[in-house]
Amino acid sequence: MSEVRIGVIGTGVMGTDHARKLAGGIPGARLTAVQDFDAARASALSRELDVIALAQADDLIAHPEVDAVLVCSPDGTHAALGLKAIAAGKPVMIEKPLAAERTEAEAILHAEMAAGRRLVQVGYMRRFDPGYAEMRRVVANGEIGAPLFLHCQHRNESSPSYLTSDLIIASSAGHEFDAARFVLGEEIASATVISPPEPRHAPGRKPQFIVLQSASGAVVDIEVYTDARYGYDVQAELVCETGTLSLRPGPPTSLRHAARDGLVVPGDWRARFADAYRLQFEAWILSILTGRTNEGSTAWDGYMTMLVTDACLKAWRSGARVEVEQPDRPAFYR
Amino acid sequence: MSEVRIGVIGTGVMGTDHARKLAGGIPGARLTAVQDFDAARASALSRELDVIALAQADDLIAHPEVDAVLVCSPDGTHAALGLKAIAAGKPVMIEKPLAAERTEAEAILHAEMAAGRRLVQVGYMRRFDPGYAEMRRVVANGEIGAPLFLHCQHRNESSPSYLTSDLIIASSAGHEFDAARFVLGEEIASATVISPPEPRHAPGRKPQFIVLQSASGAVVDIEVYTDARYGYDVQAELVCETGTLSLRPGPPTSLRHAARDGLVVPGDWRARFADAYRLQFEAWILSILTGRTNEGSTAWDGYMTMLVTDACLKAWRSGARVEVEQPDRPAFYR
Amino acid sequence: MSEVRIGVIGTGVMGTDHARKLAGGIPGARLTAVQDFDAARASALSRELDVIALAQADDLIAHPEVDAVLVCSPDGTHAALGLKAIAAGKPVMIEKPLAAERTEAEAILHAEMAAGRRLVQVGYMRRFDPGYAEMRRVVANGEIGAPLFLHCQHRNESSPSYLTSDLIIASSAGHEFDAARFVLGEEIASATVISPPEPRHAPGRKPQFIVLQSASGAVVDIEVYTDARYGYDVQAELVCETGTLSLRPGPPTSLRHAARDGLVVPGDWRARFADAYRLQFEAWILSILTGRTNEGSTAWDGYMTMLVTDACLKAWRSGARVEVEQPDRPAFYR
Amino acid sequence: MSEVRIGVIGTGVMGTDHARKLAGGIPGARLTAVQDFDAARASALSRELDVIALAQADDLIAHPEVDAVLVCSPDGTHAALGLKAIAAGKPVMIEKPLAAERTEAEAILHAEMAAGRRLVQVGYMRRFDPGYAEMRRVVANGEIGAPLFLHCQHRNESSPSYLTSDLIIASSAGHEFDAARFVLGEEIASATVISPPEPRHAPGRKPQFIVLQSASGAVVDIEVYTDARYGYDVQAELVCETGTLSLRPGPPTSLRHAARDGLVVPGDWRARFADAYRLQFEAWILSILTGRTNEGSTAWDGYMTMLVTDACLKAWRSGARVEVEQPDRPAFYR
Repeated sequence: MSEVRIGVIGTGVMGTDHARKLAGGIPGARLTAVQDFDAARASALSRELDVIALAQADDLIAHPEVDAVLVCSPDGTHAALGLKAIAAGKPVMIEKPLAAERTEAEAILHAEMAAGRRLVQVGYMRRFDPGYAEMRRVVANGEIGAPLFLHCQHRNESSPSYLTSDLIIASSAGHEFDAARFVLGEEIASATVISPPEPRHAPGRKPQFIVLQSASGAVVDIEVYTDARYGYDVQAELVCETGTLSLRPGPPTSLRHAARDGLVVPGDWRARFADAYRLQFEAWILSILTGRTNEGSTAWDGYMTMLVTDACLKAWRSGARVEVEQPDRPAFYR
Repeated sequence: MSEVRIGVIGTGVMGTDHARKLAGGIPGARLTAVQDFDAARASALSRELDVIALAQADDLIAHPEVDAVLVCSPDGTHAALGLKAIAAGKPVMIEKPLAAERTEAEAILHAEMAAGRRLVQVGYMRRFDPGYAEMRRVVANGEIGAPLFLHCQHRNESSPSYLTSDLIIASSAGHEFDAARFVLGEEIASATVISPPEPRHAPGRKPQFIVLQSASGAVVDIEVYTDARYGYDVQAELVCETGTLSLRPGPPTSLRHAARDGLVVPGDWRARFADAYRLQFEAWILSILTGRTNEGSTAWDGYMTMLVTDACLKAWRSGARVEVEQPDRPAFYR
Repeated sequence: MSEVRIGVIGTGVMGTDHARKLAGGIPGARLTAVQDFDAARASALSRELDVIALAQADDLIAHPEVDAVLVCSPDGTHAALGLKAIAAGKPVMIEKPLAAERTEAEAILHAEMAAGRRLVQVGYMRRFDPGYAEMRRVVANGEIGAPLFLHCQHRNESSPSYLTSDLIIASSAGHEFDAARFVLGEEIASATVISPPEPRHAPGRKPQFIVLQSASGAVVDIEVYTDARYGYDVQAELVCETGTLSLRPGPPTSLRHAARDGLVVPGDWRARFADAYRLQFEAWILSILTGRTNEGSTAWDGYMTMLVTDACLKAWRSGARVEVEQPDRPAFYR
Repeated sequence: MSEVRIGVIGTGVMGTDHARKLAGGIPGARLTAVQDFDAARASALSRELDVIALAQADDLIAHPEVDAVLVCSPDGTHAALGLKAIAAGKPVMIEKPLAAERTEAEAILHAEMAAGRRLVQVGYMRRFDPGYAEMRRVVANGEIGAPLFLHCQHRNESSPSYLTSDLIIASSAGHEFDAARFVLGEEIASATVISPPEPRHAPGRKPQFIVLQSASGAVVDIEVYTDARYGYDVQAELVCETGTLSLRPGPPTSLRHAARDGLVVPGDWRARFADAYRLQFEAWILSILTGRTNEGSTAWDGYMTMLVTDACLKAWRSGARVEVEQPDRPAFYR
C-alpha cells in the first residue's frame, strides 16, 4: 500500500476540520468518504472535498475504498464503531474518549487482542505536540533526573451551558490524564479532587483541582478551569530531580501594543494544537503503511484514562482519596 | 522621635545581614546595639559597625539607647524575647516563626492585647515583595475577579542534612502559608498533604505537595522542594475569575550564552528578596515613627500561620484532609 | 496532475535534507530522481530513498519522470540550471541565491518572461516561517500602523574559515535582505555598512552592521555575527507606528537547570526553520498543482536581493551610503 | 558629617518627585530647602514637606543649612547654577544635561578642576539601574568577551508638541549616549543618523536612528521613537564576543487577561527607573559623606555626552558620518 484511503464518520466541527486536513494535507493519506447522521451535512462536505458521502456508518466502514476509519461522531457511538472497524480488519482512529462505558472499552480490548494486531488509536493528540513530546523525551532519558511533580493547567475561554462540574472531570480533564500517563510513562495510582468556588459568570460549574499520584509516587496536579475568559491556555511544568521543563505557549511572535507586552492568547485550541493534530495524522498514516507502532494512545491507554476518570469522579463525590483500579496489562499492550 | 534606635538579637547569617542593612541603609533607622549567645561573634560585628555589643538579650531589650528590637536568634527563643520586648513597651520585629509552641504564641497575643497597642511584627517579608504586593492589590481591588487558585512553588538549591520531611512542612513552607493568607486576604480552612518520592540525591527528605483551601474556597497548592539543585526559585500564579497574575523572577537582565537563552538563577534567597527586606524595614521604621500600621505580619498572622502548619503536619501524618482550627479573631487584631 | 514528481540537483547537506523530506513528507510531492557531481554521493542517496540517480543535471531536468526541479548545487551553477529548467518548461526551486552574477539573474528574468509563466521560485524560506509571515500580515493589514523600523539580528554559532568579512555581506546576509523586502512589502532604497572589530576567536572575519532604508523610508538594521558561539539565533523586531512585533525563538519548552532558566539555543538553523522549509515545499507543490502563486520569492525577488547585496558591498568598501539600483519592475512580476 | 542637608532648585515634576524622595526616603539625606522661579509652587511644596522655601536660587546655594544642591531647573540655567555651587564649595547634582552650551560645560570643568575636588554629578540615573549596572559589570570583567554591538531602543508613549526632530537627538537621546559610554567604558568616536518617516499621528517629528561607533570599534545603534503610543519602553541588548545580555522590562508580575499574556507597559519612566533614582541618590549621599567617588556621571561625562550630541546633530543635518571631537581627558577626570 502506498496510500491510505480514509473514511471519516461524523462531520461536526472536529470531523470537518479533520476531513479537510486529510483531503490533501497529509502525505500518504487520501480522503475517500464521509458520513454523518445528518445526511445533508455529510453531503455538503462530500461535495466540497469531492469524496463519497455515505448514509450509514456501517457502509463507510465496509466500503472497499476505505482502508482506515476516523471516528468523530458523538461519544456514545465510539465503541460500537470501533468494534465494527476491528471486525472489518481496518485501522481506526477514535476521537477521545475511547468509549462511553467501561464495559464497552473492555470489549474493544478483547476484540483487538482477538484480531491479533493493533488496529485502534485514540486521538489524544497532545502526545504529538512538540512540547509534550519533549517532556516525554526528557523523562525517558533521565537527563534532569526522575519526575517528582507535574503541574498542569487547562483553561478554556468559555464553555457551553451543558458542561457541569462533573463533566469537567469526566470530559474536559481527559487530555490531561492521558498526557500525564504519557509524560511520566507509568500508570496513575490514586486521585484526590478539590473544588474551588464557582466563578460568578459561570454558575453551576465549578473549576476543578485534581491531584493524582503515579505508580512511582510522582504528584500530578491539574487545574481545569473552563471559563477563564482571557482565552484558551494549556500550561504544564514538569519538575524532575535536578531541573524543570515547562511548556511555552505557541505564538511565533510577541506583540507590544496598547500598554501590553507579550503574547496574543487564542480563543480556542485549534491554533495551539494544529501541529499536534497534523503530526498525529502523519504518524497514524505512517503506522498503517509500515506496520510500525507510533507514540499515539492505544486502546489500553484509552481504557486506563477511563479508569482514572472513574476514580476522579468517585474522589470528587466522596471528598476522599480514591485508588485507581489497576487491571493487569495484557502482554499484547506492552 | 525622628529616628529609631535599633538593637539586634542574634548575629547569625540573617541577623548580621539585617544589622549591616540597618547600620545606615534604612532612612530613619540607626543601629545601636547587637547581642549574640556567642559573645565573640557579637563583639566582632559591634566593632565592624561601631555599635554596642551586649552580653545578654535582656540587657539589649532594656538598654536606653534601644527603641526597638529585632529578634534573629534561634526559633526556640523568639517567644520569650518577644514577651520581654512587649513588657518593656518596645516595638519588636521577630524573624519567622513567631514562636516555637502554640501556647507561647498565645501568650504573645495576650501580652500585646494587654499592652493595648501593636508592638509585634513577624518577618514574613514577602508581603513587601513588589510581586506579592501586586497580587494582593489585584485581589483587593477585584480587577480580574475573585481568586480561584493560587499555585505556588518554593525551591531551594540544596538543604542542610538536618532538614527532614516534616521540617519541610513545619519550617520551609511557612513563608508560603503567610503569603497565601496575605494575597487572598482570608484564613486557611483546611489542608491536605501528598508527598512525592525522595530525590535520590537527598535521601530521607521528601518534597511536599500541600493543598490548602481558604475560607471562601480558593484552592492553594504549594510545592516545596528543598533540593532542586538548579537554584533558588520561588514562583506563584494567582488565578482569578477572568485573568491570572504570575510572579516574574527577578534578574534585571537576560543572558544568551553557552547554548542557553534566559535568566541566571541565584543560589539563595538574598538577591531574590533584597527589595522585600529593605521595604519591610522601611515600613517598620515608618510605623514606629508615625504610629500607623503597615502591611506586615502581625502577631495574629504569625499565630494563624502556626495553626496552618499544625494542620498540615496532621494531614501529612494521617493522609487525610484536616481542618485548620479557627479561633475567634480578637477585635484588637482586625 | 495530482502529484508532482521532483528531481533534486545537488545532494550536499541541504540537498540531502530536502530530498529526504520530499521522499514522502510533503503532500502531493514524490521524489523521483537525484543528481550530484559526486556520483557516489548521489547513488547512495538514490538507494536510500529508492529513486533514480542520474549522472548529469541536464538528464535530470530532461527526464520524463521529473515534473519539477530543486536546485541545491553550488551557487555558481544556479543560473545555468535555472535557465535549463525554464527551457524545459519545468518549475524550478533554486536555493538562494538566484545567481552568482547579475547578468545571469537578468538572463533568468528574460527567459521566464519569454516563457510567459512563473517557473522560478527562490528558496528564501523565511517567508514561510510563521513568525515572519505574521510580521508580513501585520504590515499588510496595518493593524499597528505603518512600519518605521525593522531591527534584525542574525547569529551563527561558528563559521567555516573560508567565510570572510565581505562574504558575510554577500552570502550570510541574503536571507535578511529578502526578509526585509518581504515584511515591508517594498524595495530597499539605500545601504550603509559599519563593521565592529573582529572577535578574537575569528580573526579576519568582521561582524557586520548593515543599515538599509526602504522606499518609504523605514529603517532596517541588520546585525550579522557569524561566530556568536552561544548558538544559532535569528531575531527581529518590527516597529510600527503604534506597536511592535517581535519574533519569538522556537523551542516548545523552557528549561530550568544548572543555574539557568530559559531556552535551549540550537547549534544550527535546521530546527529553527524546519517548519518554514516544510511550508515552503507545501506551498510550492500546491502552486504547481493549481497554477496559483504563493508567497515565495520570485526571480524578481532574487534579483532585487542581489542588487541590495551589491549596494551593501559598495557601501562597505566606500564607507558611504550607497543607493540601491532600481530597475523598472516588469508588469510580469507585479 | 552624619547627614547631608539638601536644597532643591526647581520644583517642576521631576524636582518635586526628587524633593519628596529626599524628604525622608534616602538614608543620610535631609531635605532642608526648595526654590523655584514660581514662588507659589516652591512655597506649596515647602509647606507639604516642612522645609524652607527660598525666593532666589543664589540664596539657596548660599544657605547655611544647605550642604548640597540638586538642580532641577530648566536646562538653560544648569551651568550657571552649577558654577555657583562649585564657587560655594558645595556638591551639586545637576539633572541632565550638564549645560545648554558647550562653552558653559567647559567653564564647569575648569571651575571644578580649580576647586580641586569632584563637586559635580550629572543625573544620568541609568548608571544605577540594576540592568545597566549588570551590563557594565559584564563588560568590565569580560565574562562573555569584548563588546561588539549595543542595540538600544528608547520609546515614549507620546511627546509634547514642542519636541522636534532635532530635539529628539539633542535631548531625548542624551540618556542613551551616556549609557553607551558607561556600559562600554570608552568614548564614542563617530556618529551617523538616519531618519525614518514621521508617524502620521506625530507630524513634524521624525523618529531617529543613530549609529555610533566607539573608540574600540563597537557599534551602538539607537532607536529613539517618542510617540510609540503603547507605552514607555527602554530596551537594550549588549552583544559581546561569546554571548549577549539584554535588559528585562521591570514589572514584578505578568498578567494574563483579555486575550493577552505578558507585561503591563507603564506610560512613563518613573516606575521603570524608580530604583535607579533611589540608588543614584543613595550613592550621591554616600559619596558626600565619605568622600569616595561613585559610578555616577561626572562633569566630564556630561561634557562628552554634549560632544556626542553635537556630532549627531551634524550627522543628521549632513547625512554623512561625523567624527566626535576628542579633547584630551584631564588627569583630574581619570
